[in-house]
Amino acid sequence: MGHKYVYMFKEGDKSMRNLLGGKGSNLAEMTNMGIPVPNGFIVSTEACTWYNSNGKVLSPDMKSQIDDCIAQLEAASGKKFGDATNPLLVSVRSGARASMPGMMDTVLNLGINDAVAAGLAAASGNDSFAYDSYRRFIMMFADVVIGVSKHSFEHALDEYKENKGYKSDEDMTSDDWKAIVDLFKKIYRDDQGSDFPANAKEQLYGAITAVFESWDNERAFVYRRMHDIPYEWGTAVNVQEMVYGNMGATSGTGVVFTRDPASGQKVIYGEYLMNAQGEDVVAGVRTPKDFMELEKDSPACFKEFIEIATRLEKEYKYIQDMEFTIENGKLFILQTRNGKCTAQAALQIAVDLVKEGIVTEAEALQQVDPKALDQLLHPVFDPAELKAGQQIGKALPASPGAAAGKVYFTAQDAADAAAKGERVILVRLETSPDDIIGMEVSQGILTARGGMTSHAAVVARGMGTCCVSGCEDIKFGKGEFTLGGETIKEGDYISLDGSTGIIYKGNIATTEAELSGNFATFMSWVDKIPGKIGVRTNADSPKDAQRALEFGAEGIGLTRTEHMFFDPDRIPKMRKMILSDTEADRRAALAELLPFQKQDFTGIYEVMADRPVTIRLLDPPLHEFMPTEEKDFADLAKAMGKSVEDVKARAHSLHELNPMMGHRGCRLAVSYPEIAEMQTQAIIEAALDVKKAKGFDIKPEIMIPLVGDLKETRYVKEVIEAKAEEIIKAAGVELKYTIGTMIEIPRACLIADDIATEAAFFSFGTNDLTQMTYGLSRDDAGKILDDYTTKNIYEGDPTAKLDQTGVGQLMEIAVKKGRATRKDLKIGICGEHGGDPSSIMFCAKIGLDYVSCSPFRVPIARLTTAQAALAGEKFD
Amino acid sequence: MGHKYVYMFKEGDKSMRNLLGGKGSNLAEMTNMGIPVPNGFIVSTEACTWYNSNGKVLSPDMKSQIDDCIAQLEAASGKKFGDATNPLLVSVRSGARASMPGMMDTVLNLGINDAVAAGLAAASGNDSFAYDSYRRFIMMFADVVIGVSKHSFEHALDEYKENKGYKSDEDMTSDDWKAIVDLFKKIYRDDQGSDFPANAKEQLYGAITAVFESWDNERAFVYRRMHDIPYEWGTAVNVQEMVYGNMGATSGTGVVFTRDPASGQKVIYGEYLMNAQGEDVVAGVRTPKDFMELEKDSPACFKEFIEIATRLEKEYKYIQDMEFTIENGKLFILQTRNGKCTAQAALQIAVDLVKEGIVTEAEALQQVDPKALDQLLHPVFDPAELKAGQQIGKALPASPGAAAGKVYFTAQDAADAAAKGERVILVRLETSPDDIIGMEVSQGILTARGGMTSHAAVVARGMGTCCVSGCEDIKFGKGEFTLGGETIKEGDYISLDGSTGIIYKGNIATTEAELSGNFATFMSWVDKIPGKIGVRTNADSPKDAQRALEFGAEGIGLTRTEHMFFDPDRIPKMRKMILSDTEADRRAALAELLPFQKQDFTGIYEVMADRPVTIRLLDPPLHEFMPTEEKDFADLAKAMGKSVEDVKARAHSLHELNPMMGHRGCRLAVSYPEIAEMQTQAIIEAALDVKKAKGFDIKPEIMIPLVGDLKETRYVKEVIEAKAEEIIKAAGVELKYTIGTMIEIPRACLIADDIATEAAFFSFGTNDLTQMTYGLSRDDAGKILDDYTTKNIYEGDPTAKLDQTGVGQLMEIAVKKGRATRKDLKIGICGEHGGDPSSIMFCAKIGLDYVSCSPFRVPIARLTTAQAALAGEKFD
Repeated sequence: MGHKYVYMFKEGDKSMRNLLGGKGSNLAEMTNMGIPVPNGFIVSTEACTWYNSNGKVLSPDMKSQIDDCIAQLEAASGKKFGDATNPLLVSVRSGARASMPGMMDTVLNLGINDAVAAGLAAASGNDSFAYDSYRRFIMMFADVVIGVSKHSFEHALDEYKENKGYKSDEDMTSDDWKAIVDLFKKIYRDDQGSDFPANAKEQLYGAITAVFESWDNERAFVYRRMHDIPYEWGTAVNVQEMVYGNMGATSGTGVVFTRDPASGQKVIYGEYLMNAQGEDVVAGVRTPKDFMELEKDSPACFKEFIEIATRLEKEYKYIQDMEFTIENGKLFILQTRNGKCTAQAALQIAVDLVKEGIVTEAEALQQVDPKALDQLLHPVFDPAELKAGQQIGKALPASPGAAAGKVYFTAQDAADAAAKGERVILVRLETSPDDIIGMEVSQGILTARGGMTSHAAVVARGMGTCCVSGCEDIKFGKGEFTLGGETIKEGDYISLDGSTGIIYKGNIATTEAELSGNFATFMSWVDKIPGKIGVRTNADSPKDAQRALEFGAEGIGLTRTEHMFFDPDRIPKMRKMILSDTEADRRAALAELLPFQKQDFTGIYEVMADRPVTIRLLDPPLHEFMPTEEKDFADLAKAMGKSVEDVKARAHSLHELNPMMGHRGCRLAVSYPEIAEMQTQAIIEAALDVKKAKGFDIKPEIMIPLVGDLKETRYVKEVIEAKAEEIIKAAGVELKYTIGTMIEIPRACLIADDIATEAAFFSFGTNDLTQMTYGLSRDDAGKILDDYTTKNIYEGDPTAKLDQTGVGQLMEIAVKKGRATRKDLKIGICGEHGGDPSSIMFCAKIGLDYVSCSPFRVPIARLTTAQAALAGEKFD
Repeated sequence: MGHKYVYMFKEGDKSMRNLLGGKGSNLAEMTNMGIPVPNGFIVSTEACTWYNSNGKVLSPDMKSQIDDCIAQLEAASGKKFGDATNPLLVSVRSGARASMPGMMDTVLNLGINDAVAAGLAAASGNDSFAYDSYRRFIMMFADVVIGVSKHSFEHALDEYKENKGYKSDEDMTSDDWKAIVDLFKKIYRDDQGSDFPANAKEQLYGAITAVFESWDNERAFVYRRMHDIPYEWGTAVNVQEMVYGNMGATSGTGVVFTRDPASGQKVIYGEYLMNAQGEDVVAGVRTPKDFMELEKDSPACFKEFIEIATRLEKEYKYIQDMEFTIENGKLFILQTRNGKCTAQAALQIAVDLVKEGIVTEAEALQQVDPKALDQLLHPVFDPAELKAGQQIGKALPASPGAAAGKVYFTAQDAADAAAKGERVILVRLETSPDDIIGMEVSQGILTARGGMTSHAAVVARGMGTCCVSGCEDIKFGKGEFTLGGETIKEGDYISLDGSTGIIYKGNIATTEAELSGNFATFMSWVDKIPGKIGVRTNADSPKDAQRALEFGAEGIGLTRTEHMFFDPDRIPKMRKMILSDTEADRRAALAELLPFQKQDFTGIYEVMADRPVTIRLLDPPLHEFMPTEEKDFADLAKAMGKSVEDVKARAHSLHELNPMMGHRGCRLAVSYPEIAEMQTQAIIEAALDVKKAKGFDIKPEIMIPLVGDLKETRYVKEVIEAKAEEIIKAAGVELKYTIGTMIEIPRACLIADDIATEAAFFSFGTNDLTQMTYGLSRDDAGKILDDYTTKNIYEGDPTAKLDQTGVGQLMEIAVKKGRATRKDLKIGICGEHGGDPSSIMFCAKIGLDYVSCSPFRVPIARLTTAQAALAGEKFD
């Protein structure tokens, strides 16, 4: 025998989830716990992987192992597979490593054919049950395995009942079911040109193959992409002896959550039907009963179920999502798994389980998906207020939260309306840095173009503002847009759900996030976990900084100094500076910007007090500050005493073929050291002022962006140092500050040992580092990613998470080399990945000191760092 | 005593060049050979480095070591430094590791003051000599060390002689020189506000400091940049006891090459003057005599010199460039170094030295700078034809060679004229891929914009066509341009020297390159060296391939398939393909391109016969193929049956923000597999045809560009394989082919172990790899590099050579990981660095199998690979 691909339930346990899938490993675990589980076996995920990369056939080896397990089922049950007198029927279900509800299809009653059906009828003494089972099998097998649409079967059944004047399936006699079986077989033959397969083994191999194939279907791809499940994992197949909930009045089937998955309350929450198979409960043909009524219908089974549920909750230490079947008064458990629930419920359950002594605080922390916290931090629509017919469109859920407000189409109009106290939704074709003033005051942002990483999406997430992006169905008119057949005029109300991407007409009430209660309790456990890496925030304003502090940030890991210049008061001065012909003119324009910049930092220091604040020098290419509107060019020309043509020509000369790899970052400080000097002056003077006024121990961390060379780093550092020393000396006050670098260019990682001779700290800018390492510009990746995901090369945007395989290697090199030069080198990350759980895990593992993320990601990051520490992923 | 910074000549030898500089180590070597060299010592290059990074002062330690060496000179000579009765005078000269002629200044006669001059006069019995020496010293010291311009001194001396009615210095009496000394001291005092320094030690420290400072002067930066000499090397300082060629009729001084540095002929070539100091020989005040006349003037010294020169040639195994001084009939050698000579001379000397048994062939190979060969491969202007007044401008020497032809301003006009048999020079503002047809037929190319890495420069170098780029002084008019005050009309002749960047008016005759004779002999030695890595060529046409074979290429490392589509016959079809709305339309357009593409490959295979040919699939972003002219848009719209607006809109939609990191390379093959299929079909069908027709054993190597992911590589490989197998099977002929990848994205290096599971070979595309690793787009680097070189951060364009520090690490990772997966993985390089000697050395060292470069770089690459093998730089 070659590699082992097939496992009896008794050979497995819950630790074998990767090999046996979630469902299979749990069935195995329950089997070994002595819980009544119908006997069965599992074809492993390895078999699926082998199948998908070896011409999509089951190997002879696999088949023989499957046959062997069937023989074991036969021996244990005394029944025979495909045998007419005492037939063994089985169910075939998928079961991947991660739960993928609804993704994979199920085949019940497999092993049946004309002779077996007759035998089953004889053995059970229940013709109706036998032929009902048979017709169910034909339809499921034809649909799931062969691809004959189940609608033709359902339609035929409805027609039959109508002709007979039947109201429901309960009116069907055994003869009716026999007639339906014949009808179904005919439908199959008409569609396929061959008879329905009667051989049990053939049915079984076909069903297993169908499960493997379903790993490759469209829905599975979409689901995996949404949930970051790698294609390579594959799915397992569970083959299990049938038990029948449809054997009569003492049989039944149901689905149960051990607690309320919406609220988290400790009440059993479930539904069941007597005399039914599993699909009937969800199909809606009959209305299921509340689980608590089972106490009357089947008191023994009810009691046994409660005992088992309690055992399973203790074993799995979490809310369980269970399926059961009662066959002639005997209870069988068909599935248990950790229940999916809302974020609110997850916290309620965590708090309760700790109180009940079922889990420790640390265990509770490990059970909550950090990303779920995001739901709690933003306003949501009051469910009572949501009515049918309000939805007018759906696009990308770019930044979570719910918001309602009046529509405005320009940043200026939005800002003006907000100044009058209106709640505002900014609706744009796409946004640019010019729109910041409008974005800042808006409750929500809606764009017609751009994906999850568009300007609007990135900025909105940073600000914690709700955003729906890429709504391509929007048609703009003059002062209005149409969507979903509705015309929305400027000043009309719309409501956006940034967590779902749904756009509603009208003004829907929201409820604010609640950060006390269970949330506060839960986060207090986070604080108790030792060995966590730090969590800082990216914040460009005192408001952001304040919010991040409330969410538990320990400092600022990135203050960008460029967004500040887009303010209408400042942008003209910035433009004048950029277009200056001489250093003297540039210095004059910079002198006008200095007070603004200083005021920005003063506000941030006042909020952050003694906490560390990292400020990055000007980074973007200068053309980003140039006007796009004629009027702005005219104003600028007038202010500079130049012709509009001159100003336009100069602005045009800033154009670059590949601006991401052009004149930006520290390259600006090399060309125009006076800019870095002005920024240093603002940073240091503000620090001195706040230190004096408030007595805070302020230690600014000045960060040089885009370094890739030692001498370049040294040059800019010397410019900063000279200015800083001059100011500190003149002030006569002691002030400590450090100078470090962004690490965002592949070369910077490779020569990190050199760079660390000058840099007191590193902060990975993984947005740019990822794009350069991939040689892929996010701005241009749209079509590429579409084609790559369609062709199963990428599963979504590979740059959305930290690419541990490629970029991660560069980061490890940088950490190792940087610390070889400077043992105490402080290293963090301030790219968007700093707020992504799997990326944070990696950062902890390679020894980073902190992650920095947007304020609304701070709780997520904090929980993840605790999980990393608990998982022992934090190494020194 | 701390670190040793100062070495007596007897403590050194020629192996200590890095520490003692070229001049110093040779003086030390000669001292130890027993050759008459005035005694002296060397302040090392380490001292210079220390000086430059420690506040620009000599350390007390250095000073004490210098004092100690002065004491040794005093002891050996019996003279005393700064002593009036028996004074020791010294010369101070710079001497870097690499010869930097004219870069550093010299101070002679140091140690003199009023009292010493009097003592020197008494001791020598020669007042004239003493005060002549004194005035020389004041002027040199004031000029070189203090920065008082020597012109004021020269002017004062001229005036004095005029007042006295003297014709030359020989008319000056000792009293005249005394008067001049006083005059010079006054000039110094007037300029500096202090007396000329009289203290000998102060003079010495000042002179040494001045030499160190001169490493930082503008000329030194320029020279280092031109010759790739790192700033870090620093210069040494040679302090040497003075000997005097100006002591009278039996004294003298001269400069000699041991062979003719222009032709290489074995004749001593030099000049001398009796009763003179070194500067007089070059200053042109008196006309020097031919060295051979020395046999009459000083037969003993002549004989001794010839003996020494012969010994030194044998010792250094190369033409020597020597300086000597005769003091009262005694010969001293002041310098010897390897002579700089023309490429022609270098080969003549190499051939002669081998014939004379002085060097082995292998030694001769190591003495020739590979880059010098470039001079031999291109036409040059016949020196007899060059006349004054012809030069009208000078710009960047973008591609070597000399060319004359009639000026045309568009590619089409150039092509039309060339078709009529005219020799053509294409003059453009800048070139784009559209201009290829004009560039191909031109003798030379002149552009007003763009640097050494502009489109024009890169393409011209690839084609071996002479190019002068970035001539910003050109003013274009209608059908004409003006430059240097001349107006050149279309059809007028101009001549370009792409090796110097000079632009001449008129039609200057050129002489063709001569590849037989010494060149052939020399290259035949290259072939004999074992253990060399391979040299292939980048060639897109049979013509390029043929030329590369003549230059000794072993195969093709890169055939780009995109340039071919710019042909006027093809570009409309290419555009149609790109703008097709459906795959079917695209396939139809591709079918039209197939015959052309097949014909390209057929031609190349026929030239290359059994040699390997690597063909890269389509690489550039598709917008590069779009029209820029209105007329072309109109034609295209007509051909496609669309409106001009539609076509323009579609072309515009191809625009990308960062096209270098956009939809190009293998990403095109993923989006449009049909393009890769058409190219594969052309590659395979052409191979089958040529194999059948000629019997060559053709094994195409198909190269996938821009890979960065395993599944992406696999996808494209499968597209190619399926098509190739289909065609081969249909043909029923056996054909071997391999599929490999460009490695040009940082991530590809990091995951090379994965990529190698699919790729049969790697070829580093270091152009893109370097730009992405640096995060620096060459197209946008102009202003950045200007500022970086001005500020001494970069010494020239850091991407012009392989960046061994950063990019080199990625290459090493890729080689190691790639070979870990596939032991026999063939690895080459096909970026521009494949033709650069230091980059080739690195490639040999890290174990590459071959380099591939443009045809004209092939001899350079071959010589370099031989040198690498000889230097033991080739490891397996």
